[in-house]
Amino acid sequence: MYRIAIHGGAGVIAPGMLSEEKEKEYVNALEQAIKAGENILIHGGSALDAVSASVIVLENCPLFNAGRGAVFNHQGKHEMDASIMNGKNKMAGAVSAVQNIKNPIQLARMVMEQSEHVYLTSHGAMEFAQAHNIEICEDAYFYDTFRYAQWEEAKKENKIQLDHSEKKFGTVGAVALDTMGNLAAATSTGGMTNKKYGRVGDTPIIGAGTWADQLCAISCTGHGEYFIRAVVAYDIACLMEYKNMRLEQACDEVVKNKLVEQGGEGGIIAVDKFGNLSLCFNSEGMYRASAGSEMALQCLIYKG
Amino acid sequence: MYRIAIHGGAGVIAPGMLSEEKEKEYVNALEQAIKAGENILIHGGSALDAVSASVIVLENCPLFNAGRGAVFNHQGKHEMDASIMNGKNKMAGAVSAVQNIKNPIQLARMVMEQSEHVYLTSHGAMEFAQAHNIEICEDAYFYDTFRYAQWEEAKKENKIQLDHSEKKFGTVGAVALDTMGNLAAATSTGGMTNKKYGRVGDTPIIGAGTWADQLCAISCTGHGEYFIRAVVAYDIACLMEYKNMRLEQACDEVVKNKLVEQGGEGGIIAVDKFGNLSLCFNSEGMYRASAGSEMALQCLIYKG
Repeated sequence: MYRIAIHGGAGVIAPGMLSEEKEKEYVNALEQAIKAGENILIHGGSALDAVSASVIVLENCPLFNAGRGAVFNHQGKHEMDASIMNGKNKMAGAVSAVQNIKNPIQLARMVMEQSEHVYLTSHGAMEFAQAHNIEICEDAYFYDTFRYAQWEEAKKENKIQLDHSEKKFGTVGAVALDTMGNLAAATSTGGMTNKKYGRVGDTPIIGAGTWADQLCAISCTGHGEYFIRAVVAYDIACLMEYKNMRLEQACDEVVKNKLVEQGGEGGIIAVDKFGNLSLCFNSEGMYRASAGSEMALQCLIYKG
Repeated sequence: MYRIAIHGGAGVIAPGMLSEEKEKEYVNALEQAIKAGENILIHGGSALDAVSASVIVLENCPLFNAGRGAVFNHQGKHEMDASIMNGKNKMAGAVSAVQNIKNPIQLARMVMEQSEHVYLTSHGAMEFAQAHNIEICEDAYFYDTFRYAQWEEAKKENKIQLDHSEKKFGTVGAVALDTMGNLAAATSTGGMTNKKYGRVGDTPIIGAGTWADQLCAISCTGHGEYFIRAVVAYDIACLMEYKNMRLEQACDEVVKNKLVEQGGEGGIIAVDKFGNLSLCFNSEGMYRASAGSEMALQCLIYKG
């Protein structure tokens, strides 16, 4: 048995906001991303390889706010965060505030596998990338007309904004269970449009934006400040382990009760060792997809 | 009723390693730091103000690896991390990889109180500091002969090391319960000697190095990579809330069982809303102190 789920961000995405053509583009992109991961799992590959593969496809797609398609920060640059965790041995890797890295999730994985550390930030993380032959891209690679217009508007109104827009949206992530019974999670983001001051959200925070152990794997998307202060991903794991909640129950408790009380908009994708999946959000929509053995591949955008 | 506890790092500190004079210096510094916080609590001040005051004294003391006295990184600079959390409203602030900031804990608190964000990193965090009139100090302020020698040695052996040394040692932190029944926690560090690549440990990670809610407040010190992957501070809170463990039981479970199994050396200080204290470590020693209403002030270094 294997399972995989991915997300491409959650927020104000209601039916009618996207053109039919745009919807199709998103669904195609999600399908391509989940198939990249599923293909690895079908052939007996690891959950870790599967989540990496899916997130790389999402990072390479300009529709999503991660890698190519990342939003512009206040300086007109693309400043990205990512993290990955291997449930099998609870090893983890994370980077924040990195620029010009084609696939931040690969860098996070490299930190996990090729350093003694878990978490590298900013220029230091980029030095590490160069020393380890991670693919570097010029600013032009990350340039996107829509993102640029979005930034120009945010600058005019002098506001920092989550990437809420009818056209483009959000953090990306993946969780998987492989045929050996191991779990993994990965998350990658460009953060907030026009963000200043090296703002970091929950994406690179192990326990907040990403978690995987031998029981479950979780990847989050949403208003990072709330997700950090609620330690969202690990809280779900604790509710399962310490309160014997089922996966769905634990995800609902955190996303639909606790986060809502605190005002934190967003969603999560989760899988447990039994093959249960939860794709759960308190916003109007979440770009998401799921697949697995003896399960139909499903790509969804809206509620219900 | 009020309570306060502080730490100045945990690790290889066994009886006989410090001269009597040096021991006295540490005890004096701990006493001064805890009194700064206690004095606020005695007069009805907030737990948040108390932990800030204690950590500032520890940051200003060159005996500890935070603020003045922070270790040298690979570039010969002092790169510091800090975080603070207010249990009353679960607001939090954190900074990582900041240089030339006299009191990183004040910057973390400023992020919590004067920004919409929780976590700022590197150059961006320093820009924020300048924009908010946080005290900046030249490199010379942070220079310390002992730390410099420590760095020279680490460079020679080309190793990155935790600040394990007979003479100087570790991350600092404080937790407090105030007379209104509110809790707070704060943690500050210079990280690892000769650290490269913008390495970040658990100190600025809400949930890992620092946590405070309405039930308990926790500050950690130790091998950060292990503390991140174990989400140490929030795990203690979850064991209390979800498994009804008492504070001491939860701290022992995480520090003396889970972390030991994983190989993570270090310790924590914790206080709960009932006024229970736990100063708990799996290393040979931890610089620590505690005080409270109807309680004798205690400064300790070794086990037992």
